[in-house]
Amino acid sequence: MKVLVDLSIVPLGVGVSLSSYVAVCEKVLKDAGLKTALHAYGTNIEGEWDAVFAAVKCCHEVLHGMGVPRVSATLRVGTRVDREQSLEDKVRSVEEKMK
Amino acid sequence: MKVLVDLSIVPLGVGVSLSSYVAVCEKVLKDAGLKTALHAYGTNIEGEWDAVFAAVKCCHEVLHGMGVPRVSATLRVGTRVDREQSLEDKVRSVEEKMK
Amino acid sequence: MKVLVDLSIVPLGVGVSLSSYVAVCEKVLKDAGLKTALHAYGTNIEGEWDAVFAAVKCCHEVLHGMGVPRVSATLRVGTRVDREQSLEDKVRSVEEKMK
Amino acid sequence: MKVLVDLSIVPLGVGVSLSSYVAVCEKVLKDAGLKTALHAYGTNIEGEWDAVFAAVKCCHEVLHGMGVPRVSATLRVGTRVDREQSLEDKVRSVEEKMK
Repeated sequence: MKVLVDLSIVPLGVGVSLSSYVAVCEKVLKDAGLKTALHAYGTNIEGEWDAVFAAVKCCHEVLHGMGVPRVSATLRVGTRVDREQSLEDKVRSVEEKMK
Repeated sequence: MKVLVDLSIVPLGVGVSLSSYVAVCEKVLKDAGLKTALHAYGTNIEGEWDAVFAAVKCCHEVLHGMGVPRVSATLRVGTRVDREQSLEDKVRSVEEKMK
Repeated sequence: MKVLVDLSIVPLGVGVSLSSYVAVCEKVLKDAGLKTALHAYGTNIEGEWDAVFAAVKCCHEVLHGMGVPRVSATLRVGTRVDREQSLEDKVRSVEEKMK
Repeated sequence: MKVLVDLSIVPLGVGVSLSSYVAVCEKVLKDAGLKTALHAYGTNIEGEWDAVFAAVKCCHEVLHGMGVPRVSATLRVGTRVDREQSLEDKVRSVEEKMK
């Protein structure tokens, strides 16, 4: 089952500068071979369900391994069986309607 | 790794009455042996990471099997390594501060 | 326009013990006269749109006033015009389907 | 108070093709003079708190005016008082750490 996810990871207990932790998670997702697109409030991820969620778990584990005591993430998770849809399809579909 | 999740599942393409679909997901989570607490906007879930996310995947699969073409979920996901914390601990901790 | 909201507020830069901050927000919401229901991962809120979002803004302002440098919140926001629905209706509706 | 928001709006009861509704909301946000950035799972918004949330309310109202019976949105909401930060700052900050 393919899934599109929007992931926002917030490490807690390490102050207010979080970008270095987010960068590590970006690397984890890329190393997992997933298609990703970074935005100002999270990362779009496209892939097979098991691969995507294994990578999300890995993000939590890697952050804890770096000494982060608490990790809070929010995910939007979309699956559909009526047709294939990529991350680019979703953006293009909206942009075409805006013309 | 233990995880606390707040899951809100929205089936798309099946009209505006969603409670029967949510009830099916509640059953999936309970059958998986997970501790859950239903609220008006989702379900708190407590368990081991792999068991929790296997059950979330199962929710998506069961809904699609019921004919739902598209499933949109939002999850809050929390892990911590500084100490154990249950769903009840979190609520109690806030309530004590409100006295 | 009536709205049902699920609010989860995470103060950043103040360590990992967040319950006292959440308790302050609970008080802000109650003082605003809103119907609320606390759960382990947030607070359900029911009210008129403007009143609810004024209270959410107040939560951010009060936390910053307490010295919190950064506040990250996630909200689920639902409006419907087909019929009235309260927080209790939503829970009851699912529980009836589970019998 | 400035705020950065990530908004994902899901109209319910209108089938599975949602992009035309999302496009209308994009127009509402732009007409409100807000800085926005569309991604595959929502829209980043930057602006003053009151202007941003007035526009979000307007999105709900416009969708209901188009005949959408039920609207479900998820928002990530960030405020900070330690320093100014734009949408571009957030992305750049992560990208620099990834080099």
